[in-house]
Amino acid sequence: MVNILHRVGIRTAPSDVYKTLTTTAGLAGWWTTDTSGTGDELDGRLEFRFGADGFDMQVRDLDPDRHVRWEVVGGPEEWIGTHIDWKLDRSGDWTIVLFEHSGWREPVEFMYHCSTKWAVFLMSLKSLGETGRGAPAPDDVEIDNWN
Amino acid sequence: MVNILHRVGIRTAPSDVYKTLTTTAGLAGWWTTDTSGTGDELDGRLEFRFGADGFDMQVRDLDPDRHVRWEVVGGPEEWIGTHIDWKLDRSGDWTIVLFEHSGWREPVEFMYHCSTKWAVFLMSLKSLGETGRGAPAPDDVEIDNWN
Repeated sequence: MVNILHRVGIRTAPSDVYKTLTTTAGLAGWWTTDTSGTGDELDGRLEFRFGADGFDMQVRDLDPDRHVRWEVVGGPEEWIGTHIDWKLDRSGDWTIVLFEHSGWREPVEFMYHCSTKWAVFLMSLKSLGETGRGAPAPDDVEIDNWN
Repeated sequence: MVNILHRVGIRTAPSDVYKTLTTTAGLAGWWTTDTSGTGDELDGRLEFRFGADGFDMQVRDLDPDRHVRWEVVGGPEEWIGTHIDWKLDRSGDWTIVLFEHSGWREPVEFMYHCSTKWAVFLMSLKSLGETGRGAPAPDDVEIDNWN
């Protein structure tokens, strides 16, 4: 099994970042404007849409201002059953975000794409935290011919 | 062993991207302006500096317009002995770049940082190919408190 790993630092409090990861308003500010569901309850379900496609997540762990864990329960076949972890830690003026999308069965080309795209969305999360403005879909940054 | 994987698409010819990966002028346009050495010969050595720190690479494979492989022979301990592969493939108007930084011994926190930072530098490579202007160090995009 192979994992996607990322680290960004955001000049804001962990509680602010936690809020952007657990509320639909927060999530819609950096990932996709078409976000619905419940992100702040254990076993809550979140639905993220990018046009006709998207991802459904079930909330598997919540430790306020420190950790969020999702299980992918709907979406592309390669994503089903994978997990997404957000670990938050304060370091001076920064919140350090350790991101992990784990449990990929094979390093397929789609995984290469998703790794880069996650980085770009994490930069959107950083921008939202620091400037109040992210770049969620459909106005996200294009990285390749798969968008 | 764990790997960093990325995919970007650049609206330019594979020969242009290959040139930016094998000449010091090209490399200085997207990674770091302080680049020296020889990138277009097998066993050539490239030296990339970011202030006092940096990386030395030995060119291990060259397949014009298709593949470049470097071995890290100088730099941070975690990088020594790892390999960096650039695979280029034309798809319509695009050059698709599959990037792999392989052979990390452990998924240390520095690897999380490098994964995101590589993505940002790949977007710089994309920008250089499409607009003639990248964002190499020292004017690179900051991602966290390690820069």
